[in-house]
Amino acid sequence: MDANPILAETVRGNWVENRHRGAYVVIDANGTIIASAGDIERAIFPRSAIKSMQALPIFARGAENKFHHSEEELALACASHHGEDAHVATASGLLARIGLSVADLECGAHQPSNAAAREALRRAGAEPSALHNNCSGKHSGMLSVALAMGLPTSGYVAREHEVQRAVRSAVETVIGERLTEDKCGTDGCSIPTFAAPLRAFAYGFARMSTGQGLAPDLAYAAKRLFDAATSHPHLVAGTGHPDTLLMTAFKGRLMQKVGAEAVQCGAIRDKGWGYALKCDDGNVAASQAMLAGILLKLADPDTEQRALLEKYARQPINSVRGMQVGELRAC
Amino acid sequence: MDANPILAETVRGNWVENRHRGAYVVIDANGTIIASAGDIERAIFPRSAIKSMQALPIFARGAENKFHHSEEELALACASHHGEDAHVATASGLLARIGLSVADLECGAHQPSNAAAREALRRAGAEPSALHNNCSGKHSGMLSVALAMGLPTSGYVAREHEVQRAVRSAVETVIGERLTEDKCGTDGCSIPTFAAPLRAFAYGFARMSTGQGLAPDLAYAAKRLFDAATSHPHLVAGTGHPDTLLMTAFKGRLMQKVGAEAVQCGAIRDKGWGYALKCDDGNVAASQAMLAGILLKLADPDTEQRALLEKYARQPINSVRGMQVGELRAC
Repeated sequence: MDANPILAETVRGNWVENRHRGAYVVIDANGTIIASAGDIERAIFPRSAIKSMQALPIFARGAENKFHHSEEELALACASHHGEDAHVATASGLLARIGLSVADLECGAHQPSNAAAREALRRAGAEPSALHNNCSGKHSGMLSVALAMGLPTSGYVAREHEVQRAVRSAVETVIGERLTEDKCGTDGCSIPTFAAPLRAFAYGFARMSTGQGLAPDLAYAAKRLFDAATSHPHLVAGTGHPDTLLMTAFKGRLMQKVGAEAVQCGAIRDKGWGYALKCDDGNVAASQAMLAGILLKLADPDTEQRALLEKYARQPINSVRGMQVGELRAC
Repeated sequence: MDANPILAETVRGNWVENRHRGAYVVIDANGTIIASAGDIERAIFPRSAIKSMQALPIFARGAENKFHHSEEELALACASHHGEDAHVATASGLLARIGLSVADLECGAHQPSNAAAREALRRAGAEPSALHNNCSGKHSGMLSVALAMGLPTSGYVAREHEVQRAVRSAVETVIGERLTEDKCGTDGCSIPTFAAPLRAFAYGFARMSTGQGLAPDLAYAAKRLFDAATSHPHLVAGTGHPDTLLMTAFKGRLMQKVGAEAVQCGAIRDKGWGYALKCDDGNVAASQAMLAGILLKLADPDTEQRALLEKYARQPINSVRGMQVGELRAC
């Protein structure tokens, strides 16, 4: 297996300290490659970067029709949120409306990703719940799908549960690849995750962005989900997170989602291009630098967008006393 | 530049998720290579992995003779400690004895690496001081060198200060390479760090371990420092840290030190072999897996040592609910 190219590096003083390899592809809905580097046919786990694809059964299986998900609830279904008040309230609101509760979530509990939210819990002497899990919006959406399908909700995270079959089928449809058992793992939130070629995920985002090549109802669902996410960027991640800041700055032009272990997926919506990126070693900050480098070149950023992207493309490394001693930068 | 080989990877389910490349070399004091992988002539920043080398001027410049450093103080000079009570007490004890205080440390303050120590500070409503900085033992030692040399202590972290010149000279002597300005950076604790070939650092550890090829006084200093570190493994890192646990388990046979950004250096003392390892992407857990893989093969571990090494060579990856879903493993 050939090594992927170095797409980001850290420099300390005048010498390179770390090297981050990876692959990326920007593609349109015809499958025409706009730009790429590295082995884009290698199968990667997309993890949370494709939550918007995993949310498609909310439409395809009648849940939205039955429960009338708000735009905020759809945005949260696409989110790796930070456990801030708005995130917890949106997830618990949907659960209450469909007659379920936090007890039905099977994602597990972890501390909020947001420091102030962690501190607030701590001051209240409270333990985090599954609502604080960054995936609680996705899981609440999946529970609504189970109810709409008339299924028992218990065990909805299992690979063989009809909800997960519906998710798998929706992802297969938009990426144009079969998801196979020989490339299957379990995500941090207990649902299955399937590895597939990096190119296919980018292609799926291009198709969701344009609707091109998708059945009308699927194209409609994709548009509703992307509109929801780009209209509520704070719900998709949280205060200060690059996904939130970038989507806010791009004012609807950019759908952007990180996945665990340094996956970045999204779409430059006005161009109809999807993209997918994976840093081989799982370093998230490096993947953000790589992504910023790509968007600087290809997303026609305005001044404000450019300034933000440049912050991620060149991230300072400071000493304990706060002096800049190096940087992480896109290559 | 050729890519270094993949020395560790993470697997999720039945598919590889992340790949970690790197280089390592195990060498004896004659310069004979016992084992290696990757580009061992590439210059890397050793960071904190060579604190034992940086401590040599405590002997060479008369500080030990003047201030009679305890074995604990010598161990702490070689340490990236966790800011636990024993660490803070040892650093402040040396400072007091030489007539200085925390105010003279120029490493900066950061939260203790140890969670219980952080919690204790928090409960006391106290801010961390430079004594909690993982480098405070090294810095206290450097201050003792400044005093022994009759120098002003202020600015002792600067590249041109005589203390740092002495450190640089000692490192050059043991590794057999010049440290040059074209490969210089600033470490997190504000002192200079010089990149040099990976092989040279391993060679330096072999020479410090055996004394072979070193002047008698330098060989004596090296032995005192290695004896101190291996006799007080808790002072060199902290509760639960691999360096502490490995050195404890190897009962003096192993000198082991991590450096920031995934450097691992040390010596298998009874064999007279030094080693150095750098994971290209800076992932510390991956470098621990790589190191464990090497020590399993080359350090003749007994049953207990083997069990410990295997823990690091194959590290479980769990879901939020605590189910094992993958592992990080040495290749």
